[in-house]
Amino acid sequence: MTASKHQSRLVVKQHFYTFAEPPRQMLLESGARLGPVTIAYETYGQLSATRDNVILVTHAFSGDSHVAGYLATDKEGAKPGWWDSLVGPGKGINTDRYFVICSNILGSCMGSTGPSSINPATNKPFGLDFPMVTIGDMVDAQKALLDHLQIKSLLAVVGGSVGGMQVLEWCIRYPKMVRSAVPLATTMRHSALAIAFNEVARQSIMADPNWNQGDYYGKKGPDLGLAIARMIGHVTYLSDEAMRQKFGRRLQNKKDFSFGFDADFQVESYLRYQGSKFVRRFDANSLLYITKAADYFDLVDNLTTSESIRDLSDAAIKFLVISYTSDWLYPTYQSRELVQALKRCGQDVSFCEIKADCGHDAFLIPDKRLSDLIRGFLKGVAND
Amino acid sequence: MTASKHQSRLVVKQHFYTFAEPPRQMLLESGARLGPVTIAYETYGQLSATRDNVILVTHAFSGDSHVAGYLATDKEGAKPGWWDSLVGPGKGINTDRYFVICSNILGSCMGSTGPSSINPATNKPFGLDFPMVTIGDMVDAQKALLDHLQIKSLLAVVGGSVGGMQVLEWCIRYPKMVRSAVPLATTMRHSALAIAFNEVARQSIMADPNWNQGDYYGKKGPDLGLAIARMIGHVTYLSDEAMRQKFGRRLQNKKDFSFGFDADFQVESYLRYQGSKFVRRFDANSLLYITKAADYFDLVDNLTTSESIRDLSDAAIKFLVISYTSDWLYPTYQSRELVQALKRCGQDVSFCEIKADCGHDAFLIPDKRLSDLIRGFLKGVAND
Repeated sequence: MTASKHQSRLVVKQHFYTFAEPPRQMLLESGARLGPVTIAYETYGQLSATRDNVILVTHAFSGDSHVAGYLATDKEGAKPGWWDSLVGPGKGINTDRYFVICSNILGSCMGSTGPSSINPATNKPFGLDFPMVTIGDMVDAQKALLDHLQIKSLLAVVGGSVGGMQVLEWCIRYPKMVRSAVPLATTMRHSALAIAFNEVARQSIMADPNWNQGDYYGKKGPDLGLAIARMIGHVTYLSDEAMRQKFGRRLQNKKDFSFGFDADFQVESYLRYQGSKFVRRFDANSLLYITKAADYFDLVDNLTTSESIRDLSDAAIKFLVISYTSDWLYPTYQSRELVQALKRCGQDVSFCEIKADCGHDAFLIPDKRLSDLIRGFLKGVAND
Repeated sequence: MTASKHQSRLVVKQHFYTFAEPPRQMLLESGARLGPVTIAYETYGQLSATRDNVILVTHAFSGDSHVAGYLATDKEGAKPGWWDSLVGPGKGINTDRYFVICSNILGSCMGSTGPSSINPATNKPFGLDFPMVTIGDMVDAQKALLDHLQIKSLLAVVGGSVGGMQVLEWCIRYPKMVRSAVPLATTMRHSALAIAFNEVARQSIMADPNWNQGDYYGKKGPDLGLAIARMIGHVTYLSDEAMRQKFGRRLQNKKDFSFGFDADFQVESYLRYQGSKFVRRFDANSLLYITKAADYFDLVDNLTTSESIRDLSDAAIKFLVISYTSDWLYPTYQSRELVQALKRCGQDVSFCEIKADCGHDAFLIPDKRLSDLIRGFLKGVAND
């Protein structure tokens, strides 16, 4: 890489904000209390003098605050942030124009407080003593961060998958703060199928003897169980068509079958690789907590609070709902249900189903159509 | 149950046939040799004097030879065989008219030789010393059984899923013996998606420390890993729609969330129950071997032999191909590919896609449409 190229790189820094210091702990949706809470976050671009150009990007289940660009600590050859194709100078979410914030969700393991954090009551990692957190709790932690940053209005909240759930939850909890919302590849609530996949993933972790009821920090963790959980996840992120195109029945460095239990097919190697790679970066307990939060999420019949999509009747938020033709985790019919529910409570909703073969993961894949769509939508909102 | 009802029950007996006694061992497709080989089987109805009324039913991955009726040893309340809705006196496959044979597949654990059988070389269970078997090997073992029973012609071979693969393999290996074939809910070869699900299931077994490289007989087996493998299987056997209807987001004996890792949703309990129930009846190593055989199966580009669906050009078999609208393990497009391939080599093919919400499992669920379809098809073949 040349020096000039390196200078043009978007270089960002991870920050941490800690709040809810005892005894003023955060009250969670379950009724439990948690504190202190640390939220890891990154910001991109410049906050305008009137503080009216803020876009909050919310990340999916295994994501982090590093949405775009590079960290100063990145080595040569490091990959940029997870949505670098969409967020950056001149891109769909243009950081020359907007001030973008992305924070790691509560319950995760990428800098924010989660089950691997130290429990102040014991001075040991929480493990299963970490309280169950909901999508609403994640949003409340983001709200505390925005309060700290003295941001009172969001030009947009944008996120896909579990990030899209946060987008919707933001609209319901803080409708007056949100001018527009872009939920992508998401749902108002998990289907039985989505719950089923999450449950199998959780069971595979909890079946690993090294999981040890969540008490494995400093010891060998449930690596095998976590790898299998990730393999299950990867199957749901792709589609039949995506897998056919990407792998088909191609063999892995072989001209014949092994007639054994090695990885014969490329798709087997791919899944094994994805599983083992994930183990190096993610905490098994965080997977348990975040998948459960996603399963609990329900804007149609929420059991724990009375909140639902119907609460948006008094809001005036511009929505851009995006789904993908080959997403079978949150199929388009679920986005249509969302669009109908939003329209029923009088919201301004645009809907776009993007044709893509790559399944649920499509929203993470560089796509000019998505960039153009979001660029145009944000411009309209900013000019309103 | 009243005495009269009990008397009308179809009561059957499991038989065993052992062949390939050393040194005349069975030559497997991998080049390995296996023997002696025992095949468990059941028969229903009466063989006609001209031996022209034989129907071979082939079972799916975890099935057995007990296709219909009750065993004399069954306790009160026992369920009948796995395809009792279709096979029996007066039913779609009418045992008043046809002589039905169903045998447990090679590599299984329901009476036929498989990895849990005793290896004569060591006097211990084979475990991973069991050679890899293919769908073709399973069919060759069935052929040996038919030779023993002095059956030279099959009125029909009928089977779904992995049973459907055997149906197709029968047509290719022994086209002159087969008058008609009914492959249901099956494929000419596994897609990357189907391989992916099988691979995750295998990995979940092999990740269980009790698996112990397949050497667990007489000790505690890989029950947790096998249960998770079965949970994965069950997700693939159902459909999004089937799960919505069967479970939706209904909670398990609760009015609120547990905010813990108990089974909150009915679909979670269902999967846990299916997983633990399977552990009591199935051998983990058999799952490994049979799923691998299914993954290897390929009638388009078979790597190990030159056989393919194109070899049927000289055959004259009547086919009835059946698929289900909501089957996403072997979707209808794969049955259409099969139909086209069969037509290209001049076979007489009928095709029916049955509208059903219950996913891949649909072929096992009582359905008058299926019974009528098969009854009519068999009548046509018998009258030819």
